[in-house]
Amino acid sequence: MVRVAILGQGYVGSIFAVGLERIKAGEIEPHGVPLQDELPYKIKDIEIVASYDVDKNKVGKPLSEIVKNYWKGKLPESLGKVPIRKGVHLRSLRNLPIEAEGLESEAPLKEVVAKLVEEWKELKVDVFVNVCTTEAFVPFKSRAELEEAIEKNHTDRLTATQVYAYAACKYAREMGGAAFVNTIPTLIANDPVYVEFAKESNLVIFGDDGATGATPLTADILAHLAQRNRFVKDIAQFNIGGNTDFLALTDKERNKSKEFTKSSVVEDILGYDAPHYIKPTGFLEPLGDKKFIAMHMEYVSFNGAVDELVITGRINDSPALAGLIVDLVRLGKMAVERKEWGTVYPVNAFYMKNPGPKEKKNLPRIIAYERMRAWAGLPAKYE
Amino acid sequence: MVRVAILGQGYVGSIFAVGLERIKAGEIEPHGVPLQDELPYKIKDIEIVASYDVDKNKVGKPLSEIVKNYWKGKLPESLGKVPIRKGVHLRSLRNLPIEAEGLESEAPLKEVVAKLVEEWKELKVDVFVNVCTTEAFVPFKSRAELEEAIEKNHTDRLTATQVYAYAACKYAREMGGAAFVNTIPTLIANDPVYVEFAKESNLVIFGDDGATGATPLTADILAHLAQRNRFVKDIAQFNIGGNTDFLALTDKERNKSKEFTKSSVVEDILGYDAPHYIKPTGFLEPLGDKKFIAMHMEYVSFNGAVDELVITGRINDSPALAGLIVDLVRLGKMAVERKEWGTVYPVNAFYMKNPGPKEKKNLPRIIAYERMRAWAGLPAKYE
Amino acid sequence: MVRVAILGQGYVGSIFAVGLERIKAGEIEPHGVPLQDELPYKIKDIEIVASYDVDKNKVGKPLSEIVKNYWKGKLPESLGKVPIRKGVHLRSLRNLPIEAEGLESEAPLKEVVAKLVEEWKELKVDVFVNVCTTEAFVPFKSRAELEEAIEKNHTDRLTATQVYAYAACKYAREMGGAAFVNTIPTLIANDPVYVEFAKESNLVIFGDDGATGATPLTADILAHLAQRNRFVKDIAQFNIGGNTDFLALTDKERNKSKEFTKSSVVEDILGYDAPHYIKPTGFLEPLGDKKFIAMHMEYVSFNGAVDELVITGRINDSPALAGLIVDLVRLGKMAVERKEWGTVYPVNAFYMKNPGPKEKKNLPRIIAYERMRAWAGLPAKYE
Amino acid sequence: MVRVAILGQGYVGSIFAVGLERIKAGEIEPHGVPLQDELPYKIKDIEIVASYDVDKNKVGKPLSEIVKNYWKGKLPESLGKVPIRKGVHLRSLRNLPIEAEGLESEAPLKEVVAKLVEEWKELKVDVFVNVCTTEAFVPFKSRAELEEAIEKNHTDRLTATQVYAYAACKYAREMGGAAFVNTIPTLIANDPVYVEFAKESNLVIFGDDGATGATPLTADILAHLAQRNRFVKDIAQFNIGGNTDFLALTDKERNKSKEFTKSSVVEDILGYDAPHYIKPTGFLEPLGDKKFIAMHMEYVSFNGAVDELVITGRINDSPALAGLIVDLVRLGKMAVERKEWGTVYPVNAFYMKNPGPKEKKNLPRIIAYERMRAWAGLPAKYE
Repeated sequence: MVRVAILGQGYVGSIFAVGLERIKAGEIEPHGVPLQDELPYKIKDIEIVASYDVDKNKVGKPLSEIVKNYWKGKLPESLGKVPIRKGVHLRSLRNLPIEAEGLESEAPLKEVVAKLVEEWKELKVDVFVNVCTTEAFVPFKSRAELEEAIEKNHTDRLTATQVYAYAACKYAREMGGAAFVNTIPTLIANDPVYVEFAKESNLVIFGDDGATGATPLTADILAHLAQRNRFVKDIAQFNIGGNTDFLALTDKERNKSKEFTKSSVVEDILGYDAPHYIKPTGFLEPLGDKKFIAMHMEYVSFNGAVDELVITGRINDSPALAGLIVDLVRLGKMAVERKEWGTVYPVNAFYMKNPGPKEKKNLPRIIAYERMRAWAGLPAKYE
Repeated sequence: MVRVAILGQGYVGSIFAVGLERIKAGEIEPHGVPLQDELPYKIKDIEIVASYDVDKNKVGKPLSEIVKNYWKGKLPESLGKVPIRKGVHLRSLRNLPIEAEGLESEAPLKEVVAKLVEEWKELKVDVFVNVCTTEAFVPFKSRAELEEAIEKNHTDRLTATQVYAYAACKYAREMGGAAFVNTIPTLIANDPVYVEFAKESNLVIFGDDGATGATPLTADILAHLAQRNRFVKDIAQFNIGGNTDFLALTDKERNKSKEFTKSSVVEDILGYDAPHYIKPTGFLEPLGDKKFIAMHMEYVSFNGAVDELVITGRINDSPALAGLIVDLVRLGKMAVERKEWGTVYPVNAFYMKNPGPKEKKNLPRIIAYERMRAWAGLPAKYE
Repeated sequence: MVRVAILGQGYVGSIFAVGLERIKAGEIEPHGVPLQDELPYKIKDIEIVASYDVDKNKVGKPLSEIVKNYWKGKLPESLGKVPIRKGVHLRSLRNLPIEAEGLESEAPLKEVVAKLVEEWKELKVDVFVNVCTTEAFVPFKSRAELEEAIEKNHTDRLTATQVYAYAACKYAREMGGAAFVNTIPTLIANDPVYVEFAKESNLVIFGDDGATGATPLTADILAHLAQRNRFVKDIAQFNIGGNTDFLALTDKERNKSKEFTKSSVVEDILGYDAPHYIKPTGFLEPLGDKKFIAMHMEYVSFNGAVDELVITGRINDSPALAGLIVDLVRLGKMAVERKEWGTVYPVNAFYMKNPGPKEKKNLPRIIAYERMRAWAGLPAKYE
Repeated sequence: MVRVAILGQGYVGSIFAVGLERIKAGEIEPHGVPLQDELPYKIKDIEIVASYDVDKNKVGKPLSEIVKNYWKGKLPESLGKVPIRKGVHLRSLRNLPIEAEGLESEAPLKEVVAKLVEEWKELKVDVFVNVCTTEAFVPFKSRAELEEAIEKNHTDRLTATQVYAYAACKYAREMGGAAFVNTIPTLIANDPVYVEFAKESNLVIFGDDGATGATPLTADILAHLAQRNRFVKDIAQFNIGGNTDFLALTDKERNKSKEFTKSSVVEDILGYDAPHYIKPTGFLEPLGDKKFIAMHMEYVSFNGAVDELVITGRINDSPALAGLIVDLVRLGKMAVERKEWGTVYPVNAFYMKNPGPKEKKNLPRIIAYERMRAWAGLPAKYE
């Protein structure tokens, strides 16, 4: 059994819940789940035992009710018993058209953390999945700075993710082990303060920023060009969507947080920093969760010839991430059993856009995949 | 020194000659040459010592004259001394607007082979590069059938490539070793008759069908999808160009030869035969050597979501292949020195669309690349 | 009231029937119907009074049953009473995986025509809509040749469309007027023999080949370029789909019929015959009715600059045509009332790929649209 | 003879100068010039008599020297005599990596205007072509406000374009007529204050914002959809380039000026305001003057079917506009002769993105083209 707590019951968390139960019910194939049922923990072993949110329209209602906002099809009967609990807000939904309230409005952060740890102990959570909305954040310089922010209730200094990850450390230390999967850009697996804290606390961290959409595909296409020694002149990548995450990105402060993320995948894969423009571009409501991506690349081939590639597509954003989570929670439990405290690069390198720890680079995904399989004890896919 | 004979002095052979000399002269970077100058044999070690063609307008003229048909830029001075020799035709240019005549019109094939072997012994050829136009061919069922066709001068049964590869075997046996790089679809590395003959004769064969254009990119993109267990519903791939190779493909018999090639890359990479339409589509003269490709894929992601990718591009056809040849002739010489007679899958798997030997599959190129490097004694590119 | 007979109850005919009733029931907006409810005849005035087919699995069943093969949504209750009648086959479905039988297997063509005319008189048909599968056909050189083919029961010489149009002439003469809308490539509005016959017989013909998909869009984009005096170097247009029409086009003889169609839209719009490759490219079953199109154009702009445009898309094939038919049947009835016997270029120029009569050219659709409105007595859309 | 003064000798002005002379010399065809040589004034009648700029590296040098920054080919000999004169700056190049100085640093604006008028009288300018870099501007509320800004030397209130247009009015009044072609977004033809002033002053204004790139194509494609009553769900349009204009657009204030431009082409053509995201997206230096555009549209067709179109392209930015200018200067001279003081909608509607006067809408370009021809006394292109 893999007991999962969802932190942020939005689009991704809801599609994860629905797809998981539909697979368990035999209604659909596990498409989009990279490791299918190859792992020792099977998909049917995953159970959602808790869910947290700060939207006043969600808190208190059963999960089965909330997922209807994101999924219009028939619901599997097995969904439903878990109620949405009130979580940490800390402005994570600010500027969005949502009425939100977090635990921090009821008690100082130190007490909030203690309350969460108690709740989780009752729920016996194995793996936390952080699927909050993209946040405006500042990483911590030292453990002391982090502890002080909690201690002194600096609600302006912390984000929901940072508080959840802190609480997960506290919880893991008491329970002897747990895993925290961070699928959003806030630096956790890339923040040495958190990774160190996790090591001391028997916490496994996977992160940061789930590798969905155009970026991992770009990584593989750039590797394809690099292996042929084609010289990339320029790369433009646009994407536009209509879900809350794209809406959130229109908020300037959130975008600014990007400066703390690692330099681009471009240099990691090519070995030089080809001029590029790679950004979420805009919000267009009718596109919904199915974003439109467009990418243009020019490169120099043999004898100075210049080639061009254009890639466009319609990609369902939330299912892409939700499918990865089905693997990540099982790999999280495995890592806990192996006691690989801190963060696990072979897992992050395949599943994350910004694979921790901080000093590690991006790999072409096709290669990272085989290494991740080796880590998981699975045979190579391509011999 | 790597002494090269070009078989078919068309677009690819000419861009190879021009680009090679420009790199040697320091005018341009070796973009499009996958292994750059990492190999023990350097790019400056490659020398074109002979060139064959059957176009009456080419035979007898110096290489430096012929390349002007394909390259309008300044020519490096080092090009020039090699004259175009008359080669084997056997209808390889039939239905094309070219006046052609081959050695077979002067003597029976057996004598043609003997004449070529004598010439090559004088020229001390290390590596033959077959860059003829795509042929209509039928593979041989047995060595006896092949020998009889040569012996009895069955000019209708053989293609130029098949005669050249046969002569290369004879030559390699006498010289103690040589390499034959087959960059066109005619089955040589995938024909057990030729591979067996090569093993006996101290010949190394690389083939078949140089992996340029959309197919290797498709292989890597399909691997990307397969690794995420996304279920590919359908693939359509079009390409259209204006060079002689596209013109040749409008000839139905040549297209029919495709039935002898291995089943698609699709099943090799995905593990199932997703419905696909992948064909050279047409000839459009003003596109010239820069073909237009368009690819469409639909796949099922998590929870039944259907995504779509479209890839379009303008790709210079001949430089893409010519750049690979700069590696292949050096790897060919290395294989001769290692006495790896027959064919070499780790080389073919990266450089060829239809990697021999016959029983071997397609690999994702990103993985094949690292294995090829290992074969060549080079360190991994991505650690 | 506009009383319609559908000839060929396939995808287009079924989507027409379903969409029409859904609009009449107020379930959906008349999107895809160019003239909406601007005409004197309203959409609610259209009634399907008969339907013909030759598929053994369809004949005898009610329309409401047949449409379920093509439409999975809820059916409007108003559909249903009309039974599918056996029509003319004449190999129109040959080579397709359909068991078919036509009236010609029961009686000679002359009697078939007489039987149809009698049936139609009872049904009081105003407008015939020919939506048969694309046929292999040869136009007629003279009225005598056509009459002889019917008279002598030359079943190999005639196609279903040609017999239906012949019968429609006979019927119109007796009834004092009727309209025949030919939405497939068989030349009727472009065949002077039929147009002449129609004039004598009080028949209005609209045709040929409904202007859906990429071609009318291409026409407008070419006009856009021509108006800026950009010189088009080349045009490649691919399309691939998974419906019966794409399957039928894999049949070589059907494709050959294309030689009787007018030379391309390219010359009509540009004023010169830019090199182009414009063809239905292939069949790929999982695409279903939603075809994939890809188009590439290069043109010379000011000072010799070369620009490129690429257009790709997913287009629902049958709804595009079905929406036009909602206008065409009403315009057909209007033309009958105005006694515009023969064919009506201002209607054809907007709605048809190959607008009759034979001597008339393609117009940019945006211009043709306003002229069609003028013909219909409507005010200009753009002042 | 059409005597032209260029205001802003950048990319567009230079390509205009080069292309014009190459056409006059018979080296190239007038591709990209919509009306070719159909007008009473021929292309050979156009003469560049003056050029203004504020870049210190340009002022004082001959035109033939400056164009070399933008055109690497052979220069026509006829180029050259005209020196670049110092023009008005008023921060038009601020935040760009260019050292600039304008006439306003030497004298108050009132004197600057007087000086320009005197210069122009000597040069006998017929038509002014404003091709400055995109400016951050605020339109004027009244003639008094404008006059005061000049009078009191409010250099922060005015842009270069606004001063040039003001001076052109003064000049036209003295000369009895002149034309001012505004190809940039600053509102002149859409500013009632300027149009009124022009009417009083015998000035013809064409503007605003030359209709190049993706927008006019979008207009025609939207018209194509609107004419078929397809309901547009959403439109996303990106474009990215590497010339000074894209660099300038990264400056936030310039972008803000967009709020003064008319609401989108979308509502004008469709009749409803389909959700859209249409913006210049970014700067990517290696793309140079050849921008990359990408556009995505979804629309509802008959029976609720949803289609998708994607358009991508590489478009040479400056030649597209330069080609239009070849027409605009000749039409400007014609309008002067016809005494059509103020602004001329039939010309603007085809050539301008934001066709003045203010109260006028966008038309589908294909229709606007024919009306413009009619205005120019030319026969319809499509009968």
